[in-house]
Amino acid sequence: MGGLRPWARCGLLMVAHWLALGLGAVVFQALEGPPALRLQAKLRAELATFQAEYGACLPTGALEELLGTALAAQAHGVSSLGNGSEAGTWDLPSALLFTASILTTTGYGSMAPLSAGGKAFCVVYAALGLPASLALVATLRHCLLPLLGRPVAQVAVRWQLAPARAALLQAAVLGLLVTGTFVLLPALVLWGLRGGGGLLEAVYFCFGSLSTIGLGDLLPGRGRDLNPVLYHLGEMALLGYLLLGLLAMLLAVETFLELPQVHAMVKFFGPSGPSTTEDQGDILGQDALALSTLPPATTAPEQAPAC
Amino acid sequence: MGGLRPWARCGLLMVAHWLALGLGAVVFQALEGPPALRLQAKLRAELATFQAEYGACLPTGALEELLGTALAAQAHGVSSLGNGSEAGTWDLPSALLFTASILTTTGYGSMAPLSAGGKAFCVVYAALGLPASLALVATLRHCLLPLLGRPVAQVAVRWQLAPARAALLQAAVLGLLVTGTFVLLPALVLWGLRGGGGLLEAVYFCFGSLSTIGLGDLLPGRGRDLNPVLYHLGEMALLGYLLLGLLAMLLAVETFLELPQVHAMVKFFGPSGPSTTEDQGDILGQDALALSTLPPATTAPEQAPAC
Repeated sequence: MGGLRPWARCGLLMVAHWLALGLGAVVFQALEGPPALRLQAKLRAELATFQAEYGACLPTGALEELLGTALAAQAHGVSSLGNGSEAGTWDLPSALLFTASILTTTGYGSMAPLSAGGKAFCVVYAALGLPASLALVATLRHCLLPLLGRPVAQVAVRWQLAPARAALLQAAVLGLLVTGTFVLLPALVLWGLRGGGGLLEAVYFCFGSLSTIGLGDLLPGRGRDLNPVLYHLGEMALLGYLLLGLLAMLLAVETFLELPQVHAMVKFFGPSGPSTTEDQGDILGQDALALSTLPPATTAPEQAPAC
Repeated sequence: MGGLRPWARCGLLMVAHWLALGLGAVVFQALEGPPALRLQAKLRAELATFQAEYGACLPTGALEELLGTALAAQAHGVSSLGNGSEAGTWDLPSALLFTASILTTTGYGSMAPLSAGGKAFCVVYAALGLPASLALVATLRHCLLPLLGRPVAQVAVRWQLAPARAALLQAAVLGLLVTGTFVLLPALVLWGLRGGGGLLEAVYFCFGSLSTIGLGDLLPGRGRDLNPVLYHLGEMALLGYLLLGLLAMLLAVETFLELPQVHAMVKFFGPSGPSTTEDQGDILGQDALALSTLPPATTAPEQAPAC
């Protein structure tokens, strides 16, 4: 049996992961600590100046109360500055963008449900919608990957690559395609449209949206001097981007996970046992009855894996 | 060949997805539009009252400028209220939580990089860290799923369930386990600890974090009267929750995608062709050379799929 050693390897991998997490945190701290402190100091200085110049006419705490309300409202996507549209925050394009950010798990947070009903519906909608989106993506992948795989397969045959290398090539090509079409190209377009801000910021925003991280710090502010039609067009463009991009990302992810190299790593770090012929996790293929709905070629020999 | 019909089916599925998106948006709009408008009105009324009472001593635009600076700072996680710690926003526990929110793609957004270096590092770190996290989860799944699958397999044998139903049972059990352990239980704990707010809000927060949506609207505000030690403990608890929860979620997702029922749906809606013996997408197993690094039982007969 595997005893402790395979679990020790699994454990080592987890420790390595936590170290990487800690390392990232330390680097972020070093990069971001000073700018954040400077912004905080600047803000406090402005507050202090304001209080000094006009504090005489303001009752104690009135300003803090107003600020508090404004900040809390912004956390829920309600803007206190500018005229804002009379339709409020939840016009249809914005609602569509919010819904898409839920379904793609991006979750920008620039808008969030306030009411109990909204929060409950959010949970239910996501609980039903996320598996549905996953199934949809699996179907689209079933349609699309052959189209993508065939040119690569032809190249692989011509260069006489071993299947493992061919798989790596396919993954690399897909990765480059996704990065080029869904990160660099949109970033360039965004950079051109925005005028201000650098290309880096545009890449940062596109990458954050595509990877479904969705920090939400760079969404255009509400209530600024933006033509409403342009603003809504931008929202719809972002919505389409999120949906397309998610599909592309999941294609790339699944391709990555199927790489023979990744399979080899999983086997190396995981508990020892006979290699399964299906996805590693589908133990039922081994333990269940001989009758199977899957094609005979996939039925693994019936034996319990050593663990 | 399949011609248009299979693609028409794929297309129908996408149209159904968009309809579901639109329906969700309309419901959110109905639920959330009024509360947001009320909050906006309340905020404007407070602003107007403030201006009316004290506007005489304030130069035009001074208040708007201050508000603007405060709101912009908050969008980047810098709080203008309260004393705040001298260490600033990026103390180590907060940096760890931010890094974890990147690696799990949750992306709350309550903190976000300000500097160009931070943004660039964010992209690089995520681009490297996300695949690494995926590989780690695949490995852990390899270790864990047999443990989970065996009791279910035994039950399936005793009840004499067909493998398809057994797989569904396994998925359902895993789904319930994940929901119970990683949504309901933490929500109950959070509800108890918070005092205020309902159980629904706690469930909403836990579900949003677990599914990596991460709206970030319910993270405890900085600068409130929270004991720093307790606050950091809470951050660390949330960090552990995100990491554990992501693993559980991905386990559940992969199990869902492997269900024979989902495979059947994918085949139904996808282009017709011989069933592949590996994951649907791995076309290379069919088009590449006969030599294969995978065990012989998985090598599909070499034929081009009809599409």
